[in-house]
Amino acid sequence: MAGPELVRELTLREKASLTSGETAWTTKSVREIGSVVVSDGPHGLRRPAEGADEFGLSGSLPATCFPPAVALGSSWDVDLVRRVGRALGVEARAAGVGVVLGPGINLKRSPLCGRNFEYFSEDPLITGVLGSAMVAGIQSQGVGASLKHFAANNAEHDRFRSSSEIDPRTLRELYLRAFHRIVTEQQPWTVMAAYNKINGVYATEHPWLLTALLRGEWGFTGLVVSDWGAVDDPVSAIGAGLDLIMPSTGGRSDAVIIDAVERGALAEAAVDRAAGRVAELAERVKAGAAGQAPHFDRNRHHTLAREAAGKSIVLLRNVDDILPLDPAGSESIAVIGELAREPRYQGAGSSMINPTRLDRALGEIVGYAGQDRVSFAPGYRIGPGTDGDLVSLRDEATALAEQSDVVIIFLGLPAEEESEGFDRQHLELPADQTTLLDAVLAVNSRVIVVLSNGGVVRVSGWQHLVPGLIEGWLLGQAGGAALADVLFGAVNPSGRLAETIPFKLSDTPAYLDFPGQFGKINYSEGIFVGYRYFDARDLPVSFPFGHGLSYTTFEYSGASAQQNGDGLRLRVRITNTGQRSGREVVQVYAGLPGSRVSRPPRQLIGFTIVELAAGESRQVELIIPRSELAYYHPIQSRWLVEGGRYRIEVGSSSRDIRGMIMVEVSGEEEVNRLTPSSSLAEVMAVPAARAALQKLLAHHPLAAMIEDPATLAMIGSMPIRRLASFPGAEISDGQLTDLLSRLPGRS
Amino acid sequence: MAGPELVRELTLREKASLTSGETAWTTKSVREIGSVVVSDGPHGLRRPAEGADEFGLSGSLPATCFPPAVALGSSWDVDLVRRVGRALGVEARAAGVGVVLGPGINLKRSPLCGRNFEYFSEDPLITGVLGSAMVAGIQSQGVGASLKHFAANNAEHDRFRSSSEIDPRTLRELYLRAFHRIVTEQQPWTVMAAYNKINGVYATEHPWLLTALLRGEWGFTGLVVSDWGAVDDPVSAIGAGLDLIMPSTGGRSDAVIIDAVERGALAEAAVDRAAGRVAELAERVKAGAAGQAPHFDRNRHHTLAREAAGKSIVLLRNVDDILPLDPAGSESIAVIGELAREPRYQGAGSSMINPTRLDRALGEIVGYAGQDRVSFAPGYRIGPGTDGDLVSLRDEATALAEQSDVVIIFLGLPAEEESEGFDRQHLELPADQTTLLDAVLAVNSRVIVVLSNGGVVRVSGWQHLVPGLIEGWLLGQAGGAALADVLFGAVNPSGRLAETIPFKLSDTPAYLDFPGQFGKINYSEGIFVGYRYFDARDLPVSFPFGHGLSYTTFEYSGASAQQNGDGLRLRVRITNTGQRSGREVVQVYAGLPGSRVSRPPRQLIGFTIVELAAGESRQVELIIPRSELAYYHPIQSRWLVEGGRYRIEVGSSSRDIRGMIMVEVSGEEEVNRLTPSSSLAEVMAVPAARAALQKLLAHHPLAAMIEDPATLAMIGSMPIRRLASFPGAEISDGQLTDLLSRLPGRS
Repeated sequence: MAGPELVRELTLREKASLTSGETAWTTKSVREIGSVVVSDGPHGLRRPAEGADEFGLSGSLPATCFPPAVALGSSWDVDLVRRVGRALGVEARAAGVGVVLGPGINLKRSPLCGRNFEYFSEDPLITGVLGSAMVAGIQSQGVGASLKHFAANNAEHDRFRSSSEIDPRTLRELYLRAFHRIVTEQQPWTVMAAYNKINGVYATEHPWLLTALLRGEWGFTGLVVSDWGAVDDPVSAIGAGLDLIMPSTGGRSDAVIIDAVERGALAEAAVDRAAGRVAELAERVKAGAAGQAPHFDRNRHHTLAREAAGKSIVLLRNVDDILPLDPAGSESIAVIGELAREPRYQGAGSSMINPTRLDRALGEIVGYAGQDRVSFAPGYRIGPGTDGDLVSLRDEATALAEQSDVVIIFLGLPAEEESEGFDRQHLELPADQTTLLDAVLAVNSRVIVVLSNGGVVRVSGWQHLVPGLIEGWLLGQAGGAALADVLFGAVNPSGRLAETIPFKLSDTPAYLDFPGQFGKINYSEGIFVGYRYFDARDLPVSFPFGHGLSYTTFEYSGASAQQNGDGLRLRVRITNTGQRSGREVVQVYAGLPGSRVSRPPRQLIGFTIVELAAGESRQVELIIPRSELAYYHPIQSRWLVEGGRYRIEVGSSSRDIRGMIMVEVSGEEEVNRLTPSSSLAEVMAVPAARAALQKLLAHHPLAAMIEDPATLAMIGSMPIRRLASFPGAEISDGQLTDLLSRLPGRS
Repeated sequence: MAGPELVRELTLREKASLTSGETAWTTKSVREIGSVVVSDGPHGLRRPAEGADEFGLSGSLPATCFPPAVALGSSWDVDLVRRVGRALGVEARAAGVGVVLGPGINLKRSPLCGRNFEYFSEDPLITGVLGSAMVAGIQSQGVGASLKHFAANNAEHDRFRSSSEIDPRTLRELYLRAFHRIVTEQQPWTVMAAYNKINGVYATEHPWLLTALLRGEWGFTGLVVSDWGAVDDPVSAIGAGLDLIMPSTGGRSDAVIIDAVERGALAEAAVDRAAGRVAELAERVKAGAAGQAPHFDRNRHHTLAREAAGKSIVLLRNVDDILPLDPAGSESIAVIGELAREPRYQGAGSSMINPTRLDRALGEIVGYAGQDRVSFAPGYRIGPGTDGDLVSLRDEATALAEQSDVVIIFLGLPAEEESEGFDRQHLELPADQTTLLDAVLAVNSRVIVVLSNGGVVRVSGWQHLVPGLIEGWLLGQAGGAALADVLFGAVNPSGRLAETIPFKLSDTPAYLDFPGQFGKINYSEGIFVGYRYFDARDLPVSFPFGHGLSYTTFEYSGASAQQNGDGLRLRVRITNTGQRSGREVVQVYAGLPGSRVSRPPRQLIGFTIVELAAGESRQVELIIPRSELAYYHPIQSRWLVEGGRYRIEVGSSSRDIRGMIMVEVSGEEEVNRLTPSSSLAEVMAVPAARAALQKLLAHHPLAAMIEDPATLAMIGSMPIRRLASFPGAEISDGQLTDLLSRLPGRS
């Protein structure tokens, strides 16, 4: 039964009551329409514990803490993310949760965004593909996903009031692109409207965003829920296409809506629609929860969390194969850093969950190498410590480093530096940690750095001094074990950066406009986000997008690409030329030299993972839809493929291109007819028009002047209509319009 | 008699006829209102010769070609520019010209802009100060200036149709700032409305720009003329505040205006105003032309052109004092490069004039050093040449370089690469020239490069290989002599870069948005133009803004700064510590660390020139108006000085700071009262509000949560009104409004 029918019998008061929450985490039950339980969050359930505050910030029931999106994004692994999504669905079913509030798929516009740990990438393709897999996994269990935060919520600072100012092309090509993919591929049960405004209008009150685009263009059939507290004006929100205001408003928004309908300020049909969607969602949840709930096996989910963490770790640097360490070796290992003992494994805010277990790297390292080989010194405190304390901690750690054969030093950001709710102001690690690293490097050069951080940190000050560097992000509850797996080679690392590690903050694209001011965030870098910017600006970076090493090596050969029906078929042979089996993330980028429109040198159009035993070789084929080559034309308001010779690159990172193929792609030509506003140069470029114009100008000195290339270069951009009115040109408007209307289009 | 009175007796037809030109360069004469003759251009008169085309592009009467603005801007010399302006006024009077169409004061947003040679600087202060001096000079002779191109005409590409999209703060602080200064200081007789649109509206049809701002806020009393062919719709233009449409429209625009008035689509008062201003201008011109015209002495003007050129040359690099050359020395000198013989001394387009004389560097060098010491080889052609020819030219030049003691090599841009009407696409010198330079450097390391270019060129490929490097810009008709004066030390160079020479094109601020597309030019770098950007981004540059060497050295000491009435008084002692007299350009920059608003690290707030004999020392004092510290608040729509400790820097360039003083400046505080839209953090920052809020929340878990710094950090940006409606908060809208209305403003 469709939504409107479900609510046909209800009174206005009953319908209005469905448009807001009953509590912090439930919708209202009206007559036979059941209440829906929703829960944070994207990498694990956060159900409030008994006696905790209503929002569950102060405590929640145990759930598996999978790696947050910052880590999963680095896996580039669709199947893995789908399995994590499925596990979330299983846990939701087991907990009686009908909708999981995730995934978060906002782009990482600036590395400073406090919530970057909850997002996948600076690239919309990875974000869309992985987000789609996550939704598919969650929804496979009869539980709804909530695709968030729709849209352009790329900073935490002043997020309830600021307006993301974005031009239409950038909005489509970057900030809406992953939403578009996931909505059309997966039909998530819900989409969550964001806190911020977009071009001056609240996302929760944005008719174009919530109705014309989401439902009209994309065909979304689910429910639109507000982010918690995101609705400023309930009447505008319901009118614009929002269906459910969360959390409970204590009935206030319901009353305002009823009043608006009674005053004629809001169509009752809008309330019918919203209430109908809530009712539909309740039916879906009820149907999904029917039958036996799948069994939630904590151990199996922990094992999955460990696999996911292992596939998310990025090996950034490995000079002279300092890694992997030999579990059966004899060299002594100094483990330094409080973070080895007290891991940071998730971010702060609404996504913070209470894990079922917690692996610690220190213990896991001991597990591999044995107690005798491993010594530990905390080196620094996480949280405030006295200076005196710091010095003695550092001295102790340095002494340990000096007497050890190899040092694994854990560095990272303290929890209080990155959270939902505010943005970072810099990319620096705590100074006590980098001071410690300097001291350790002074006594031992065999140093492996393991990073724990939700947003990228600056490593350019010391990256070239350490032979081993592992980006461990926030890895969830099994991160400690997964790091040990990689350190000792039980897992051959295959993670790849889904975001650039810049050389310095002031190099980053949004640096001069982040986090905005005067109530506006100008997305002035436009389409040049992440590697698109660093490549276009030809800037050095610490580690490029797509980078990640393996303990084996891969060779690319015989790359080819053809136009294939409605897209491209790319083939390349990958050979594992090393001594171990491993996984290679094959990346495909496209550029169009000499494009009519502004473009980055390259953008990701496809990727795949190939797993190869030592010595094994396989041909990989990728079918890339034509739509990946399209740009959004802001005046024609449509996607358009420009014809031309595209540069297709296949590589192991955005700056480690292993093969390049030029492919001729047919375009969808713009047809522009000549008009009186066409420029002189545009008219002169069409032979028939040129001849006709010369005839009209026969006795005017302009006739000779416009045939002179230097003069034409100078005055060629003048609209023909204005030139025609110049002294003595003696072409009437009528003559001109008549002339031009009879000419063919310009090329 | 005021304008409206002058035209009171005229018919509508007569008044309308006054609103457009009679010919390309004259206004109409109606009854006793005389015709006004106007003429390009900013660095010399361009009066069409008999028999030339009406626009004079193909030939004009001889006039002194002074250095274009790109050169004069590098002089930083107010007195010099005023004297050049006066000379232009003298030549205009002598030629019967009533209005000189200059100066051009658009900012150099991108080094690619084809017309940059006509503009002074990337900085609005230098531009405004020098432009003001130029207008003062011209108008001192009873001739009007035309301040152009108003406004935001910073690219040539598609200039007749494109819209400069600029936020209000950037528009005020950068693109309008010099216009504001000059209009209020000098009341130029005319202002010229530009071709482009600004935020979607043609400059010629922009009521806010031409009326509310220019006349209303700034008090402009002169006439607004269109750039030639810039009017798209005459009715909108006259209605918006434009007074004179140029050139002649063959009567078409007059007819359209009459029709609009008769239809009631245009107020006759607007036509009265426009016609009245034309009549006023005619009276002014008539009065200015009364009496004996000043004597135009070609030789004196040539001498002034030589002085101006000499003061505009920038010595970029002088390793081991390779310069100046000794006129009485014996070392042999190879002069290489066609540009030494056939100079480029002005740009192409409407400003191109027919000089009274032309000095060539080659002859002038011979004049200093004697025929015996100087040999010449052209090395390359300007304009197309055959490859074979190029090789033999290069071989000849290289052979000459090899057998000479020192090489002066002239490099530069061909005229066809930079002009009004189109923009450059790169910053490169012609490849044959850099190949030649490489070949010369391979055989002789004592190389002095002299550059001739209207826009900056990339020098980063070879700048460190040449001991001598002179930026000669386009220097006007006496540039050849002036270059020899500097090469041989008759003139001690004192020019300073008024624009950054970037390391590479992709480093430049507007790189990703220039020259715009889809009909828009997004000024997305905002206030970060020129050195403001390079400093904010911490980018290396080839030569920084303000840079320029001397043949002597200057020491800075005892810098001090105080708040002084309505501004700052800055004092610094400058000592000439070298062996020659010389001129130092003392530069003052300001920054505000920790500013509430986005700002560049430094911006120029004052400069002065001090001329010192060898060993001489003098205390320099600059009084800097408080307005130089103000920023434009786009929401309050006013200029505002933020209180705080300003970092005042005094230096010899923007990256050669010689003294730094922190100065406490009192601000004009923004008073923001707490409202229901104030954020929780803003409320909590006011003790009384915090206490009252806690009382209201007494029984809610939020009461404890908001006292926890971590939780407050996460939810602090939520508007208090929305928080109040959260489940159980139980604060009514009324309670909240009542509470907040009784609280003091937040700090």
